[in-house]
Amino acid sequence: MKTTLDDLFLHFVQDVYYAERQLLKALPKMAKAAHDPEVKNAFLTHREETVHQIERLDQVFEHIGKRARAIPCEAIKGIIEEGDEVVEGFEAGPVRDAGLLACGQAAEHYEIARYGALIAWAKAGGHSEVVALLQETLDEETKTDKLLNTLAVGRVNKDAAAPAQSKAA
Amino acid sequence: MKTTLDDLFLHFVQDVYYAERQLLKALPKMAKAAHDPEVKNAFLTHREETVHQIERLDQVFEHIGKRARAIPCEAIKGIIEEGDEVVEGFEAGPVRDAGLLACGQAAEHYEIARYGALIAWAKAGGHSEVVALLQETLDEETKTDKLLNTLAVGRVNKDAAAPAQSKAA
Repeated sequence: MKTTLDDLFLHFVQDVYYAERQLLKALPKMAKAAHDPEVKNAFLTHREETVHQIERLDQVFEHIGKRARAIPCEAIKGIIEEGDEVVEGFEAGPVRDAGLLACGQAAEHYEIARYGALIAWAKAGGHSEVVALLQETLDEETKTDKLLNTLAVGRVNKDAAAPAQSKAA
Repeated sequence: MKTTLDDLFLHFVQDVYYAERQLLKALPKMAKAAHDPEVKNAFLTHREETVHQIERLDQVFEHIGKRARAIPCEAIKGIIEEGDEVVEGFEAGPVRDAGLLACGQAAEHYEIARYGALIAWAKAGGHSEVVALLQETLDEETKTDKLLNTLAVGRVNKDAAAPAQSKAA
């Protein structure tokens, strides 16, 4: 049984390292399954950011003197699986896009929770050298969540509602 | 293949219904595995809130004229499993408590993302009658996330860091 905050920090760095690598593979698939060019573009832009987020985690491992290693993260597997269910269950178009944006936001929120905890533990445990790296990623995740939300609320949800409303009219 | 925003809304109401019911079972276990009385209490208080959140979802099903039904939500299963890993991997005490709080926050963030999307879809799809029900739950999830964060940052993380720091001193 492990007992230190350093052990806990390492465990969750390995967890989020796995999550980022899974998202790197999932985001192009989500972009391909999306219909709207702006939605596609949002997923592909975040894929590029994810490349740098993984590099930052490599630097975190280096700072704490551990080999970069991923341990399976069941949460991100589940979140990605829910995106697959949307693609399998809903026809290409604004409704599927709305579902994909929501799944993207779930992934961002998961990462926001994880990086938030890692930053708090790095501060409490005296690893101030990794705080800036983790904060840079947290800021990107927060910005991406807001962008996906703006796309959904600003346009995609309205497009998704349009056929149902015209039918009801 | 489904095509309407109503289908998407129903799919994710069923998803979050499953998630809430799983959390109802997981929260007492998290409380039992926690060492700190305030952490235990936070999980148990949120269990009570979860009872009412499930009742609100029952009302949402009623409003949209559908039978209350849960569909497996892989994301929440994964998030709960990560909490189990913390309990299995870390000795009872402040470090495990810090890990449990982080897993609790991951669950809250997942729900914040889900309820946020459901509210946006209810508004876009003209289901204004369920918005207030969903918003009440979203506000509780946001409040719980803040409470868990305050417990972690305010005290538990410091307790978790203490032995490591005294060893290093």
